[in-house]
Amino acid sequence: MAIKTKLSLTIFLFFLLALLCSNLAVGRKEKDPELTTCKDQCDMQRQYDEEDKRICMERCDDYIKKKQERQKHKEHEEEEEQEQEEDENPYVFEDNDFETKIDTKDGRVLILNKFNEKSKLLKNIENYGLAVLEIKANAFLSPHHYDSEAILFNIKGRGIIGLVAEDRTERFNLEEGDIMRVPAGTPMYLVNRDENEKLYIAAFHMPPSSGSAPVNLEPFFESAGRKPESVLNTFSSKVLQAALKSSKGELETVLDEQKKGRIFKIEKEDVRGLAPKKSLWPFGGPFKSPFNIFSNNPAFSNKFGSLFEVGPSQEKSGLEGLNLMLTLANITKGSMSTIHYNTNANKIALVIDGEGELEMACPHMPSSSSNSRQKKSSISYHNINAKLRPGVMFVVPAGHPFVNIASKKKNLIVVCFEVNAQRNKKLALAGKKNIVSALDKAAKEVAFDIAAEKVDEVFERKEEFFFPYDNEERKEEHGRAVV
Amino acid sequence: MAIKTKLSLTIFLFFLLALLCSNLAVGRKEKDPELTTCKDQCDMQRQYDEEDKRICMERCDDYIKKKQERQKHKEHEEEEEQEQEEDENPYVFEDNDFETKIDTKDGRVLILNKFNEKSKLLKNIENYGLAVLEIKANAFLSPHHYDSEAILFNIKGRGIIGLVAEDRTERFNLEEGDIMRVPAGTPMYLVNRDENEKLYIAAFHMPPSSGSAPVNLEPFFESAGRKPESVLNTFSSKVLQAALKSSKGELETVLDEQKKGRIFKIEKEDVRGLAPKKSLWPFGGPFKSPFNIFSNNPAFSNKFGSLFEVGPSQEKSGLEGLNLMLTLANITKGSMSTIHYNTNANKIALVIDGEGELEMACPHMPSSSSNSRQKKSSISYHNINAKLRPGVMFVVPAGHPFVNIASKKKNLIVVCFEVNAQRNKKLALAGKKNIVSALDKAAKEVAFDIAAEKVDEVFERKEEFFFPYDNEERKEEHGRAVV
Amino acid sequence: MAIKTKLSLTIFLFFLLALLCSNLAVGRKEKDPELTTCKDQCDMQRQYDEEDKRICMERCDDYIKKKQERQKHKEHEEEEEQEQEEDENPYVFEDNDFETKIDTKDGRVLILNKFNEKSKLLKNIENYGLAVLEIKANAFLSPHHYDSEAILFNIKGRGIIGLVAEDRTERFNLEEGDIMRVPAGTPMYLVNRDENEKLYIAAFHMPPSSGSAPVNLEPFFESAGRKPESVLNTFSSKVLQAALKSSKGELETVLDEQKKGRIFKIEKEDVRGLAPKKSLWPFGGPFKSPFNIFSNNPAFSNKFGSLFEVGPSQEKSGLEGLNLMLTLANITKGSMSTIHYNTNANKIALVIDGEGELEMACPHMPSSSSNSRQKKSSISYHNINAKLRPGVMFVVPAGHPFVNIASKKKNLIVVCFEVNAQRNKKLALAGKKNIVSALDKAAKEVAFDIAAEKVDEVFERKEEFFFPYDNEERKEEHGRAVV
Repeated sequence: MAIKTKLSLTIFLFFLLALLCSNLAVGRKEKDPELTTCKDQCDMQRQYDEEDKRICMERCDDYIKKKQERQKHKEHEEEEEQEQEEDENPYVFEDNDFETKIDTKDGRVLILNKFNEKSKLLKNIENYGLAVLEIKANAFLSPHHYDSEAILFNIKGRGIIGLVAEDRTERFNLEEGDIMRVPAGTPMYLVNRDENEKLYIAAFHMPPSSGSAPVNLEPFFESAGRKPESVLNTFSSKVLQAALKSSKGELETVLDEQKKGRIFKIEKEDVRGLAPKKSLWPFGGPFKSPFNIFSNNPAFSNKFGSLFEVGPSQEKSGLEGLNLMLTLANITKGSMSTIHYNTNANKIALVIDGEGELEMACPHMPSSSSNSRQKKSSISYHNINAKLRPGVMFVVPAGHPFVNIASKKKNLIVVCFEVNAQRNKKLALAGKKNIVSALDKAAKEVAFDIAAEKVDEVFERKEEFFFPYDNEERKEEHGRAVV
Repeated sequence: MAIKTKLSLTIFLFFLLALLCSNLAVGRKEKDPELTTCKDQCDMQRQYDEEDKRICMERCDDYIKKKQERQKHKEHEEEEEQEQEEDENPYVFEDNDFETKIDTKDGRVLILNKFNEKSKLLKNIENYGLAVLEIKANAFLSPHHYDSEAILFNIKGRGIIGLVAEDRTERFNLEEGDIMRVPAGTPMYLVNRDENEKLYIAAFHMPPSSGSAPVNLEPFFESAGRKPESVLNTFSSKVLQAALKSSKGELETVLDEQKKGRIFKIEKEDVRGLAPKKSLWPFGGPFKSPFNIFSNNPAFSNKFGSLFEVGPSQEKSGLEGLNLMLTLANITKGSMSTIHYNTNANKIALVIDGEGELEMACPHMPSSSSNSRQKKSSISYHNINAKLRPGVMFVVPAGHPFVNIASKKKNLIVVCFEVNAQRNKKLALAGKKNIVSALDKAAKEVAFDIAAEKVDEVFERKEEFFFPYDNEERKEEHGRAVV
Repeated sequence: MAIKTKLSLTIFLFFLLALLCSNLAVGRKEKDPELTTCKDQCDMQRQYDEEDKRICMERCDDYIKKKQERQKHKEHEEEEEQEQEEDENPYVFEDNDFETKIDTKDGRVLILNKFNEKSKLLKNIENYGLAVLEIKANAFLSPHHYDSEAILFNIKGRGIIGLVAEDRTERFNLEEGDIMRVPAGTPMYLVNRDENEKLYIAAFHMPPSSGSAPVNLEPFFESAGRKPESVLNTFSSKVLQAALKSSKGELETVLDEQKKGRIFKIEKEDVRGLAPKKSLWPFGGPFKSPFNIFSNNPAFSNKFGSLFEVGPSQEKSGLEGLNLMLTLANITKGSMSTIHYNTNANKIALVIDGEGELEMACPHMPSSSSNSRQKKSSISYHNINAKLRPGVMFVVPAGHPFVNIASKKKNLIVVCFEVNAQRNKKLALAGKKNIVSALDKAAKEVAFDIAAEKVDEVFERKEEFFFPYDNEERKEEHGRAVV
């Protein structure tokens, strides 16, 4: 019997050992079943008196608490990993994907860079960044520069931009639809010259040369004092005194004065004082004037929508020498774009007005492709599906067919930055010119295994690029093939 | 005595504890020595009755089983890591390195991309991919497009290629040695127009612009219905109905009909129907015709071998604007190429006929170079050595001297895709024009520490680029300096 | 009582279990407090005899030893990680960051590549490498080639360079300030033609085409026998015999003879024999002659310093077609450069003479930016601060304002390789032409919140680019804002 007791003790210890040393994953629960078992074991030890049992049970509590902490930590890590690796829709970015870089009562700057942190599928665009600037009426964004090339698009409102060259500043008015290139390193400031409306600007950032690393999107502010800091305040006082040939006191008047923040409201007369002057010099200054996307005829237009394009071959657009095209699609309410893909370009799209939907066909999601051991793979496509509303950003890689659909209430307006635009074509899978109808008769019959006429009946229609889309019966279809 | 017993129990528990908590690596063996020891310990516990011993021994079994699982898991992980990091020969790819992307009874597509998954040494070519297509007599590969630029090389057999432009399809015959460029995103189909022989095509994939991310090699199939899937089937039924202006029933006739797979045999008359038509229009269509590598005079040729080259400066080759050269080496049986290196190009080579050997000199293998702590390093070269046979792929980075040797039985034929071909030169270390003989007399004497004439005696010979190689005495030398 | 004993045993075992299985981090100490506790526990076991206690205490010793080893290993790993990720100043490289590639009594080669191993902030320059060659009087560096493009800069001393083309060798004298481009894969040798002084050369390595992978900096040596090895020795004896059409004995005279090392002293008459010959052919050979950086007028020069520049637009510089500019700044003792930044170029700078200081403003250090969860970020700048002396290398990324200051004892001389030099401008924040003074009056007043005249008073001065800097009062200021 005494031996039996000892054995039960031994077995109990074994049991606890197994608990302690095991790495078995157990879900987070209010009451862990192991805790019950552990305490039951304490209780069942016939040789224990009450004090022994209390101590034993306390050990159980301790053990379970530590186990849970360990698990929490582990799960947290896994979650983080998961978030990075297996985002359910790595192509769509919403509010919480943006980082608030500047936030004052008079405006803010949201940025989105390091696209590939969300998914390896976005490696193609890892070097680019997008910022959205929101500046309140009559507010001023202080002079600053970036280490990247920036292409600004004036989404909404009336602005003034000041660009600083080596020995002078050029100012331009910015209107809705204006595209403005800001060369890398150029100090610039922005003003909302409207007294009532906000100014919204999308700033697309590119590395200053092909093949270089991801853009930084860290602004270097020339002015503004201690708090917020000017980049000059970083240098030691001695260096500043020598470089600026000024006493400490003089420096303080310039570098410590500004308390307003990086974006702040200015007086009406200051806004007027910042209005661009008519240039008497006909050949222009060091910077190109803004180019308005609506000054071009649309590439496609019918009553279901219009598509405006400005590419590197457009003279005076400022995009010369860049491998970039800007497009603006205005899809009429209740209409859709055709199913189409870009042959070469990767599209970074920002919804600027309206509501609607995105559907995109995508071969293999990251989880399946990451397994290098799986040497036999099959081809299957996923439907990437997202609700669109102002501020949502989405990416359409080259070769991926997609559609945009406007809700029945409002036109859907999307501005797109298409990188690697050289030699790019938009090929449609439906509508007047589509690649399925363009298949030769013999191939069509072989590929579809029915009469070519039947294929044509389905694929041909007179409208090009934008079609009507009826939202009525949508509900019954919903939920299909959504990833 | 009772105390002793308790102590022995304590020590036994200690012993098990040590076992349980230790992370000591132990080799996989049928019978773990720890198991024996553990059971012996159970047996030796004098205070145990038979039942106690049985329970104790069961615990031993359990423990050992878990330990082995843990180790297996760990070793598996290490293996995977090792495979990626320390492949014994990261420059050579065999059957099991290829992924079978399509596999039907009428043909298959093997792909090799993400070269740098095998080794960091291949970072130079990480953006490229290679596919080998094998299409049976009179079979058809359905229309599809890629998001990458493809350069096809017709290894063997007689094909037809159809390329789809926005509003029509162009067809070309493909013969052995034909090079055909397929621009990114272009829908294409392939036909084996021969009634008996298989068609073999190598497809080299490049990113559509320099500096972009690795190619995908995921085909987007335009036709073919539910299973195999068309990319169109991905979209919701409502979108398809609106885009194609067709009822659900009409769509089904087109998108659900095809059951044959992605590669399937077609009727002889269908093959004839797909024959390219003579173009009446003298200026050509949207695509360049195939260019045959044998239409050029060889860059080098003697009775020991020939080297054919088609580069970006070759008019009408379709390689204009690409930083790529295609070469085909035909090494006579029992002969070898000279020891040579490419100054700028990285060579991706595919053996298409014959048998032979590769030897390449390589400074530092990955294991040694990865240690960033090792601040004092020495220079030593490894001999990368591989048997060549059809289907084997190997990489020769710029600057790395190498030779190819044909077996005595059959000519060795290798097709190479040389990326970064601009300003590339092939410099030889032996033969008529070689860089050692080209050293000036004074430097030769200093560098080799013997009379220049003696150096010349060894390095100069009248043959250029291809030499005889006698396999007879090979065996005795074998095993030397092989990594 | 017996039960109590057993309980105390149980609790003791519990205690040891907790010790064994815990991963609690404990600092490395001579005498671990747990050891004391453990031994005390042994001693307190009333049921133990002396022998039992001795065994128990031995187990304690064992356990503590293993725990310490585990911790040591863990800390070591963490240290390594830390070193890579959170270097206190990732922009500055000193002696111990260089790797000694060759080291003989007659010279050595130090290399610095894989910049981004030190910090992700250096991703922009990850593809480049820098080597410093130090060759003693009348020594010879054997023929070798690299798989990268090299730009040599003769820092100090009198050299001869031999470059091997397919059929001959061209030799050039190298003088102080000479820039010499060596195309990728070109075999070259170097000679110090001076009888007394050392020859110092900086070799900047670039990938042979934009967008390719990091350079290797592994030299391939054509000559020199078994030890040090020639790249030829890597090949099997059979291949060498066939390629060089020579017997094993003949090969040995050429490939096994050289015992001197890769850099070795040669006779005076050999140096004379290697002197470049006057070319009778007026159009030059396959290689461009060296271009001296001092043959240009300085871009800026006053009594406080001079800046010399050679860029890709400079004819006959050898930099044509490269996106690289070489600059040499000579800052007079007690003077400084202005606070300025490069709009596009990333600067890799090597101090070649004198002493001084670097201050650079840098937004966000790696630790803070790596946290992808932190969606709300603020802008703050760090002062990157380093002592400069010959051999120190530092990196200034595009957009980052910085100053260089010379000590009062000696001029500070810095040679810089500026990559991505196309469209680059150097913009100053102080001195004759500075971007703050260039701000328009209205913006200046709004941005600085004081009268424009007051801003101008501080920022304008008549000197451009180089200013006096008085070291006298420096001490009191030191320690401010230093990262």
